[in-house]
Amino acid sequence: MKNKFAKRLSSDGCSEADKVIAMIMKLTEMPEVISFAGGLPDGELFPIEEMKKVTQKLLDEDGHNALQYSSTHGIKELREIIAEQIMAEAGVDITADNIMITCGSQQALEFSGRIFLDEGDVVICESPSYLGAITAFQAYGPKFVEVKMDNEGMVMEELEEALKNNPNAKFIYTVPDFQNPTGITLPVERRKKMVELAQKYDVLILEDNPYRNLIFEGDRLPAIKSFDTDDRVIYHGTFSKVFCPGLRIGWVCTSKEFLDQYLLVKQSVDLQTNTMSQKETALYMKMYDLKENVNKIAAVYRRRRDLMLKTIQEEFPSNCSFTHPNGGLFLWVTLPENLDASDVLKKAMEMRVGFVPGIAFYPNGNCRNNFRLNFSSMKDDQIVEGIKRLGEVLKSYQ
Amino acid sequence: MKNKFAKRLSSDGCSEADKVIAMIMKLTEMPEVISFAGGLPDGELFPIEEMKKVTQKLLDEDGHNALQYSSTHGIKELREIIAEQIMAEAGVDITADNIMITCGSQQALEFSGRIFLDEGDVVICESPSYLGAITAFQAYGPKFVEVKMDNEGMVMEELEEALKNNPNAKFIYTVPDFQNPTGITLPVERRKKMVELAQKYDVLILEDNPYRNLIFEGDRLPAIKSFDTDDRVIYHGTFSKVFCPGLRIGWVCTSKEFLDQYLLVKQSVDLQTNTMSQKETALYMKMYDLKENVNKIAAVYRRRRDLMLKTIQEEFPSNCSFTHPNGGLFLWVTLPENLDASDVLKKAMEMRVGFVPGIAFYPNGNCRNNFRLNFSSMKDDQIVEGIKRLGEVLKSYQ
Repeated sequence: MKNKFAKRLSSDGCSEADKVIAMIMKLTEMPEVISFAGGLPDGELFPIEEMKKVTQKLLDEDGHNALQYSSTHGIKELREIIAEQIMAEAGVDITADNIMITCGSQQALEFSGRIFLDEGDVVICESPSYLGAITAFQAYGPKFVEVKMDNEGMVMEELEEALKNNPNAKFIYTVPDFQNPTGITLPVERRKKMVELAQKYDVLILEDNPYRNLIFEGDRLPAIKSFDTDDRVIYHGTFSKVFCPGLRIGWVCTSKEFLDQYLLVKQSVDLQTNTMSQKETALYMKMYDLKENVNKIAAVYRRRRDLMLKTIQEEFPSNCSFTHPNGGLFLWVTLPENLDASDVLKKAMEMRVGFVPGIAFYPNGNCRNNFRLNFSSMKDDQIVEGIKRLGEVLKSYQ
Repeated sequence: MKNKFAKRLSSDGCSEADKVIAMIMKLTEMPEVISFAGGLPDGELFPIEEMKKVTQKLLDEDGHNALQYSSTHGIKELREIIAEQIMAEAGVDITADNIMITCGSQQALEFSGRIFLDEGDVVICESPSYLGAITAFQAYGPKFVEVKMDNEGMVMEELEEALKNNPNAKFIYTVPDFQNPTGITLPVERRKKMVELAQKYDVLILEDNPYRNLIFEGDRLPAIKSFDTDDRVIYHGTFSKVFCPGLRIGWVCTSKEFLDQYLLVKQSVDLQTNTMSQKETALYMKMYDLKENVNKIAAVYRRRRDLMLKTIQEEFPSNCSFTHPNGGLFLWVTLPENLDASDVLKKAMEMRVGFVPGIAFYPNGNCRNNFRLNFSSMKDDQIVEGIKRLGEVLKSYQ
């Protein structure tokens, strides 16, 4: 049989990222590995007893509808909750008509790529940026222009330079709160500035915000979209990090004009998101207080972050630096420039401990001396033991 | 803001089909409409009590995993059930490794378009063909070559002619059992012949088979894929028509080489299918007998089909012909050539009765004198009343 695949497949996926993912997969299959590689929420914090009550009530009172096809747009009740509670709390003044439910926020990323990116268009993103977004966009053949970050996210002068040099930039892609992979948060002034720059250079902003509510100290910041005055910010949200990721409930929030395009795409690619899970999520939000659940999760993750930071401080060589995230799931370690984190991973795997090498998060693949650590999914003693082992590996290079 | 949309959007969607869908949407919002337009299973036949037991047991025994992220490939238990029970019963000898779970079979269609179609490639399909597949493929800019059908599906001589005339044909798309929209079934001899022709002209076959188990009389036929000797048939299946469509559980069954491409695409577009729904489906299949559920559904739909056929016979003018499907959800009415079913629909909507005009099912839009009737979702008295009203409308043209 002659090759039947479409030509676009050759541009799908990033070989460097693929190699990393393959390495991580291998890792998860190894027994007794302490893995800081994944991005899993801790399953023991899922509200299982509450979900039992929710599903029983739902099937009792609305079973015929819960198991039936439903609209491409998403269940109205859930869209209202997202608009009136979650988006309003983030400072965004929109209605349920501005929301479409997606199969997780990964699907929203894919749709944004499909709707906005022609081959050769420029995507401006943080350096490093979220692996899943890079992979989703890559299918549409854009060029990535990475903007340097400091401890407060994208440096605005560098962003303006990138916009000036790339008149065919389509959008700025950003994870402003507790970014994946660095854990860094963009301050309010930079959020306002980013919107100003997007207006000045007429580009869109894709605000991808899965971690906003997973905050450990202080107040939540207003979303970038809260400063949007001309429908140029598209917001992607998800319940995956604060509720149940297995239900795959995310959303896109944008102008009605843009949303019409998302609806056409959704209709043609999978008709609709799971009806039962949408109704379960809406009913949970009515019967219980999501904030209580989030606070419970955040308290545990905060303790684990503290423990990881303390152990790193004690065990890593002093020529390694690392971020101090105020929320989310990840922190970011920078090694001396001559070290390659993929080599370090090979040694670490022999010690049965894992992480994701930073190279996977650079769309242009030009930085090798850093890695991402997840602090949400391992227990306290595993965190201490795993970081100790990593420290040993790092010391072996000295 | 200057236009930001990708160029591909202009080729997304079919304007004629979009108009039809808009008309149907309007229809469903009208009170007291008898609609034969949708393709919904009857929600009253859903196994709600069983699902209550399934979800409780699942959350009791496996809640942490059921609500957590899971693999792109799909839950192994469910893939094994599909391979060893459903596919084996269809005569297809494969393993769980040949199955990937999708968000309904619509997602499998979209993936097949994405993986195999370059712009200008030829898709060979039945005339008429399934609207959702046409829409999914259209996003990738193929040319559709329609093959004439008789009461036993695609005419093989016409199929060979189409293959001969289109050396850049990529695949044959077919719904062999109780086809949507016509209700027609392809006999075994033609299934074998289709595989032979696909080999001779080196094209793939996309076998889309959502209705196979929804049979009213006689034996189920072996799947086209059961005659596949060189991995050229890709099978799309779904639980939507025999279990609960709101759970969005479909699958693709193909060679490991092809499946690797589906896995890469799935990973980048939505990571994975809903974990909870996959586990619910697998557990339902272990705790209960799906065949019993299917038999219960089929008995009801069979009675409604009989009632609809009998009423059509009595109420429609004799210059209308119609199919006698042996399963599935739909039958197909052909009007005299001078009638346009879209005009008929306008009059029918005034009488508060609806259907889908045939034009939506012809990718090249060149046939206007037929329409699709759904017999699964309306009650007996609505079927009689609705067909009577339609008969009145049709008689008004005489």
